[in-house]
Amino acid sequence: MMDWRPIMLVVGILLVILAVFMIPPMVADLAAGHPDWQVFLTSACLTLFTGVSLVLMNRAPGAADLTGRQAFLLTTLVWVVLTFFAALPLQFSELELGLADAVFEAMSGITTTGSTVIVGLDSAPPGILLWRAILQWLGGIGIIVMGVAVLPILSVGGMQLVRAESSDLSDKILPRAAQIASGIGLIYLGLTLTCAIAYWSAGMASFDAAAHAMTTIATGGYSTSDGSIGHFANPSIEWIAVVFMVLGALPFVLYIQFTNGQLGVPFRDSQVRWFLGIVGSATVLITFWLTLQSDLPPRDALRSAAFNVISVITGTGYASTDYGLWGTFPVQVMFFLMCIGGCTGSTTGGIKVFRFSVLYAVASAQVARLIRPHSVVITTFNGRPLPQAAAVAVITFVFMFALCFSIGALALSAFGLDYLTAMSGSLTALANVGPGLGPEIGPSGNFSGLPDGAKWILSFAMLVGRLELFTVLILAAPGFWRA
Amino acid sequence: MMDWRPIMLVVGILLVILAVFMIPPMVADLAAGHPDWQVFLTSACLTLFTGVSLVLMNRAPGAADLTGRQAFLLTTLVWVVLTFFAALPLQFSELELGLADAVFEAMSGITTTGSTVIVGLDSAPPGILLWRAILQWLGGIGIIVMGVAVLPILSVGGMQLVRAESSDLSDKILPRAAQIASGIGLIYLGLTLTCAIAYWSAGMASFDAAAHAMTTIATGGYSTSDGSIGHFANPSIEWIAVVFMVLGALPFVLYIQFTNGQLGVPFRDSQVRWFLGIVGSATVLITFWLTLQSDLPPRDALRSAAFNVISVITGTGYASTDYGLWGTFPVQVMFFLMCIGGCTGSTTGGIKVFRFSVLYAVASAQVARLIRPHSVVITTFNGRPLPQAAAVAVITFVFMFALCFSIGALALSAFGLDYLTAMSGSLTALANVGPGLGPEIGPSGNFSGLPDGAKWILSFAMLVGRLELFTVLILAAPGFWRA
Repeated sequence: MMDWRPIMLVVGILLVILAVFMIPPMVADLAAGHPDWQVFLTSACLTLFTGVSLVLMNRAPGAADLTGRQAFLLTTLVWVVLTFFAALPLQFSELELGLADAVFEAMSGITTTGSTVIVGLDSAPPGILLWRAILQWLGGIGIIVMGVAVLPILSVGGMQLVRAESSDLSDKILPRAAQIASGIGLIYLGLTLTCAIAYWSAGMASFDAAAHAMTTIATGGYSTSDGSIGHFANPSIEWIAVVFMVLGALPFVLYIQFTNGQLGVPFRDSQVRWFLGIVGSATVLITFWLTLQSDLPPRDALRSAAFNVISVITGTGYASTDYGLWGTFPVQVMFFLMCIGGCTGSTTGGIKVFRFSVLYAVASAQVARLIRPHSVVITTFNGRPLPQAAAVAVITFVFMFALCFSIGALALSAFGLDYLTAMSGSLTALANVGPGLGPEIGPSGNFSGLPDGAKWILSFAMLVGRLELFTVLILAAPGFWRA
Repeated sequence: MMDWRPIMLVVGILLVILAVFMIPPMVADLAAGHPDWQVFLTSACLTLFTGVSLVLMNRAPGAADLTGRQAFLLTTLVWVVLTFFAALPLQFSELELGLADAVFEAMSGITTTGSTVIVGLDSAPPGILLWRAILQWLGGIGIIVMGVAVLPILSVGGMQLVRAESSDLSDKILPRAAQIASGIGLIYLGLTLTCAIAYWSAGMASFDAAAHAMTTIATGGYSTSDGSIGHFANPSIEWIAVVFMVLGALPFVLYIQFTNGQLGVPFRDSQVRWFLGIVGSATVLITFWLTLQSDLPPRDALRSAAFNVISVITGTGYASTDYGLWGTFPVQVMFFLMCIGGCTGSTTGGIKVFRFSVLYAVASAQVARLIRPHSVVITTFNGRPLPQAAAVAVITFVFMFALCFSIGALALSAFGLDYLTAMSGSLTALANVGPGLGPEIGPSGNFSGLPDGAKWILSFAMLVGRLELFTVLILAAPGFWRA
C-alpha cells in the first residue's frame, strides 16, 4: 500500500506557495484599476484553502522520507495539481479561456514551455501578464530543484551521472530538495534581478523588464507582447536575452561552486563545453546562411542567428523574427536544435546535452570495438568511467523521447494537423520549447486555432517532457501500483 | 597494412557475375529490335574485362579468410564498385541519364530502394526495365547473404543477436557466405518464380510479371510503369504483391528451417511475430481511417491499406494510389513505418523489427528497475537472456540511424528541398524504401527534379542505410586505417 500522506503534505505546501504568488498579479491589477484583481483574490483563496486543508489533514507523525515510488507519484502529482490551480485565474479572467485553453496556457507556463493560446497580449491586463511570467519563473526553479535533488536519486534517464556529489547534501529526497532549493534559489533570484535591471537599462519599461527577466532566466519564453522580443526592436535587448538564456541553460550547481571560489569548474564541465560547442556551431552555420542568402549585414545576421538558435535550443521560444521565412535549411536546423536542449540541472528541456555526450562516447566505443573486436574499450563520461547501466539508461531515454515524439505527432495528425505542424508541435511540447514551425504554430503564430483535443495532447506532452518522461510514464506501468 | 588482394578478388568475381546478368537485358532489347542492346553488350564487356583482370591479378596463394577490417572494406567496396558498373547501361542508353542520375538509379536498384529518376517507364526500352529489375533482384539476394553471413559475425548494430546458429555453417566469413548464398539462393529463386507465375495468372504480361516478381521478392519496388502496381488496376495483383512483399520481409533462414521440416519455427520467431503484429495494427488503423474519412467500401479500404502499409514498411515502395491524399494521419503513419523496416536476414531495410523488440525489452527493464531499484531484472530477447553489450549495440544503432537521418535531412534542406521533402527524402533513402512523401518525391512523384547534389546525398544515404550504417561509417574512423 502506498502512503499518500507525505505526498499530499508536499502538494499542500506547494499550493500554499502558489497562492502567495497570486498576490503580485492581484496587486498589479489593483494598481492598474483592472477588475481582474478579484479573479486573483478568489483563486488565491481557493488555492490557499485547498493547500492548508491538505497540510492539516496529512501532517506526518515523524520526519519520514519518501520512497522512490512515492517520489515519482509526488513529482507528477505536484505538476498536475499546480497546473490546474494555476489555470484558475486564466479561466476566470476577462480573457475567458475555455478549460482546454486555460490548462494549456498554465501547463505551458509551469513547464517553462512558452507556447501560448492568447492573442492580444499587448492589450491584456497586467495581472495576467505577470501571472504568466511568475508561472514560468516558479516552474524554472521547480525544475532545477527536481533535476538536482530528485531525479538523480531516482536514476531517471541516466541522471545518476549528473548527480551533484557533495558531502553537505542530505541523502534523503525531501531534505535534499529543500537544501538545494534554498541554495540555488538565491542565485536564481540574483540572476533574475540582474537580468531585469539589464533589460530596464536597455530601455524596457520596468514592468516588461521584470516579466521578461523572469521568463528569460526560466528559459520559458512568455512575453508581454504578441511580437515577443521582436516587439522592442532593440539589438541590446536581444543580446541581453542571449546572455541570460545561456545562463539559464547551464547547470545551476556550477554557479554554487563558482560562487564558492571554484572559478574554473564551469569551464571544465563536459556539459557546458558540449552545450556551448553546439550553440556556437549552429550560430556560425546560420549566420553564414543568412549572409549568403539575404542582404542582411553580417552583424545583424550574427545577432539574429545567435538569438534564435539560443532561443530554440534552450527551449525559451522568444522570437525576434519569423525564422520560418529564412528558408528550408534554417527551419531544418531549428527542428533538430529543438530536440537537443540545454544542460541538466538548468531550466531547459529537451533531450539535454549530457545525453548526447554519453551517446557519442558509447558510439565511439562501438566503432572501436567493431574495428578491434578483442580490444578492451573503456567508455568515459566527464573524465570518469561510464557505468554500462547508466549508458543503457541514457540511450533508453533517447529512444523513449523519439517514441513519445512519434506518438504525439501521430495523435496530432489524427486531429487534422498538417505534417510540419504535427511534427514540430509534438516536438516543441515534448522538449518544452514553445513555438513550433510553420505558419500556424511557428514563431509568429499561435496555438489558439488548434482543436481542443490537440491542446490536451500538447499539454500532456509538455508534462511528460518536463518530467523526463519516465517520471510520468512509470505511473502507467502495472507493476508500479503492485505492492 | 591491409592486404587488398582477397578484397579485390571478391570484387572481381562479383563483377564477372554482374556482367553475366547484363546478357538478359541485351537479349530483351535484341528481341524487341531496340538498338540499346549494343549498350548492354559494351557494358558487359567492360565489366567482364575489369572483373577478370581483378581476379587474375589478385588470386590468393592459399585459401585465406578475411579479417574483420577486410570484411568491412570489402562489403562497402562491393556495393560501390558494382553500383558504378551497373550504372553504365543506364548512362549510355537512349535515356541519356547524367552521371548523378545513372548512379542514383543504379544505387537505388542495387540497394533495393526503388526511388527512380526515370520518367516515362511505360515507353522505356525493355532492356532498361529488365536491367532495373535484375539489379534489385541481385541486391536482394546480396543483402540477405550479407545479413546472414557477414554482418552478424562482425557484430554490426547488435546483429550478433540474430546470428543463425548452425553447426553446418563455417566460421569463416567467405565460405559461410558462399554456403548461405547457395542454400538461400534456391529458395529466393523459387519464391521469385512462384510470384511471377502468380502475377501472370492474375493477368500481367509475362515480361511485366517477371520484372515485378523480381522487384517484389527483393522488396525493391521498381516497376515497368510510371503508375507502379496501380497501373494494372487489378485487386488480385495487389493481393499477390502483398503476400510476396511479406515473404520477402521475413528472415530467409527460417525458410531453410521450414523446408527442413521444422514447420513451427517461423511462427515462434520473435521477429516474425513483431513484424506481423506491427503490420496488422497499422493496416487496421489505416483501414478504419479510410472507411471513416472516405466513401471507400471496407473491402477496398482494407486492400489499399494493407498494400500501402506493407509496401512502405517492407521498403518496397510500390504505389497503388497516392496515399499522400489520404489525409494528415496516414501520411504521419507512413513516415514512421518507413523507419521500422522488416526482419533481419530479409531483403528489407530500415531499423528492423528485432531492434524494436530489443528496445522494448530494455525499456521495460528500465521501468522495472526504476520502480524497484534493488530488484534483479533479467532482459530477454527471443526467449534467451539479452547480453548487455548487444543491447548497447542495438540502441547505438538506432541512435546512429536518427543521427544519419538528421544530417541527411539537413543536407537536403541546404539544397532548397522543403521540410516534408527533405525529411521524407532522407528517411526513404536511409531506410531503402523508395518514394518519399509530398508532391515532389511522393508515391506519385519522381526524384528527377531534384538538384544533382541532393541526388548524390540520397545515393550515399541509400548505401549507408543498406549496409547497416556502421559498415560504411567505420571506414571514416581514423582508427580503422591505423595498423
